[in-house]
Amino acid sequence: ISQLAAHEEATGLGDYEHYMLKEIYEQPRALAATVPATGAHDIADEAFGTGAAAVFDRVQAVQIVACGTSFHAGMVARYWLEELAGIPCAVEVASEFRYRKRVQHPGTLLVTVSQSGETADTLAALRNATEAEFISSLVISNVDHSSLVRESDLVFLTRAGAEIGVASTKAFTTQLVAFLMLTLVLGRRRNLSPEAASAMVSALHKLPDYVEQTLKLDPLIKDMASAFILRHHALFLGRGIQYPIALEGALKLKEISYIHAEAYPAGELKHGPLALVDADMPVVAVAPGDELMEKLKSNIEEVRSRGAELYVFADENAGFLDDPRVHVLRMPHCPELLKPIVYTVALQLLAYHVAVQKGTDVDKPRNLAKSVTVE
Amino acid sequence: ISQLAAHEEATGLGDYEHYMLKEIYEQPRALAATVPATGAHDIADEAFGTGAAAVFDRVQAVQIVACGTSFHAGMVARYWLEELAGIPCAVEVASEFRYRKRVQHPGTLLVTVSQSGETADTLAALRNATEAEFISSLVISNVDHSSLVRESDLVFLTRAGAEIGVASTKAFTTQLVAFLMLTLVLGRRRNLSPEAASAMVSALHKLPDYVEQTLKLDPLIKDMASAFILRHHALFLGRGIQYPIALEGALKLKEISYIHAEAYPAGELKHGPLALVDADMPVVAVAPGDELMEKLKSNIEEVRSRGAELYVFADENAGFLDDPRVHVLRMPHCPELLKPIVYTVALQLLAYHVAVQKGTDVDKPRNLAKSVTVE
Repeated sequence: ISQLAAHEEATGLGDYEHYMLKEIYEQPRALAATVPATGAHDIADEAFGTGAAAVFDRVQAVQIVACGTSFHAGMVARYWLEELAGIPCAVEVASEFRYRKRVQHPGTLLVTVSQSGETADTLAALRNATEAEFISSLVISNVDHSSLVRESDLVFLTRAGAEIGVASTKAFTTQLVAFLMLTLVLGRRRNLSPEAASAMVSALHKLPDYVEQTLKLDPLIKDMASAFILRHHALFLGRGIQYPIALEGALKLKEISYIHAEAYPAGELKHGPLALVDADMPVVAVAPGDELMEKLKSNIEEVRSRGAELYVFADENAGFLDDPRVHVLRMPHCPELLKPIVYTVALQLLAYHVAVQKGTDVDKPRNLAKSVTVE
Repeated sequence: ISQLAAHEEATGLGDYEHYMLKEIYEQPRALAATVPATGAHDIADEAFGTGAAAVFDRVQAVQIVACGTSFHAGMVARYWLEELAGIPCAVEVASEFRYRKRVQHPGTLLVTVSQSGETADTLAALRNATEAEFISSLVISNVDHSSLVRESDLVFLTRAGAEIGVASTKAFTTQLVAFLMLTLVLGRRRNLSPEAASAMVSALHKLPDYVEQTLKLDPLIKDMASAFILRHHALFLGRGIQYPIALEGALKLKEISYIHAEAYPAGELKHGPLALVDADMPVVAVAPGDELMEKLKSNIEEVRSRGAELYVFADENAGFLDDPRVHVLRMPHCPELLKPIVYTVALQLLAYHVAVQKGTDVDKPRNLAKSVTVE
């Protein structure tokens, strides 16, 4: 395992008002650093450590275990691993996983995710996982020599650099890149054609550009944020792989603005949460760019007809029209594969600007610690 | 499939002010009716339809698919199926399951859950499940001759009787009974000893009594409810198998009182939601009765120290003490196995009384329909 970029990086604020904003803006560089430079057309198994190839050959299922934001990264990965790599995947929060009597499928790889590598529940989950349950363990972490890194068989180090803001930003998006690479190395042993793999790698190399384009929308997002500062609630909706992104967007808003934001898979709206929706409940929709778009449009119409203000993050080509109560942020058109990462950046900026305008302590929100190293 | 009790049952309000209250109080009878009278010491495979035995012999994994409250029943079942029957289980909301490219393990039984048997997304999920994915399909439903019942290979009919209130109560608890019986029939082919199976059946026969004892707490719960009527938010915490019960308690409160209640697995508190907690955020804790109790007590202390009012539903023997900000509802001491069902009843009463005191339309909450038969 080579040295982490974290140690080389300036940790000052520079021209930024907060670490969180600095870290949001560092993402193009962090994401580029996380994709190995050697892999112009492919990703080597060895990016996950020596001996990775032999383990990957035996993997028949993946169990991801994590907490908080890292858990959301795992939820995104599940869509990729099943759809692109054809490998069954389960995801669970570490504090639940570690305490229940669970049953694993044969050939399962345990994947833990933790920015700090010290998250107490995640570490305990790794420690109580047995050889009978898992063929091997892999950690995705941002900190070399951390406990999870030392105690796992395989390691992927994200190159996010030091993350100071309590609300995770660049650590999350680089975790998603790590999972795209895991999807690729497992996928090429199964469903993924060399052409599809090569297209994935090439998309990964373009990712920093799309994130740069998204950062240029900052002034528009800042304007949008002003509508939230007097609100006490918000509902975030997504479908498919954008559902965990809606969860992550809601968590950011909760963490730093203290607005009670909750995310739902849009299809569950009619099964309860629609009762909450009225003119006092702004609704944020993270639009997918594919076949689910029409479904989401009908969910959005349900919400709009109940008097809610709507904030839609959608592809610039998706054909969403503004109206007095529907505010559309037109996102750069980019490959489907990258959308969860690119849309996350816009939601990070939304949470950031709401918090700044509310005057909360953005980098150190009340009650929260950067790494949860106790239960 | 024999005739449903639903058709024989009076559908008038009787002495009750609302259908929801009537249906909450009907639970001892509905639960007793759902446990087959023939099974004094065992449950016959045929409770799930002819041919069930041959299917159950081949089951190596279970995939549960449902929406809303029925999805919560599936989440509870996952703990039972893995812990007691030793069979791996996954649970997914139907609107997500049906639209993604998923990968199933060999020997998987598809289990759908729907009170009406007509839930659109759940029905679509069954229809797009293929023979290559699943060895067979089982539905747990309350309505005979419904679409899901007609189109599934195996059927378990709950005997809840007609449910008129939009917020599901007796349908949910009888679904849990159905899942206990499924755990039993699958478990006796694997990990479950005849003694443990017999203890499960005997607990099931005692269930109506514990529910009766819980209903006697109604006046205490009604008093507790008055603290919620001026609140706009609530946080529900659970751990382990009581986490989905916390989700269900929060959903009931959302649906009929329009209070923005959200549930979290208590171990995730420090990873974000704790930032929301202050004196304006009442916290409801559904206490487990086992080894997790000490963990929950420390979560509760975190919340209390941030100034929140706490409402703890705990076993009368758990040793929770009231203090000016900790209000304990002492639940009847009952077998661990039954706690998810018994505690649900108390949370139903809490949501009901909050809604009545707020003056909402309890049986027909705004924006919601009884059966979601469109997408």
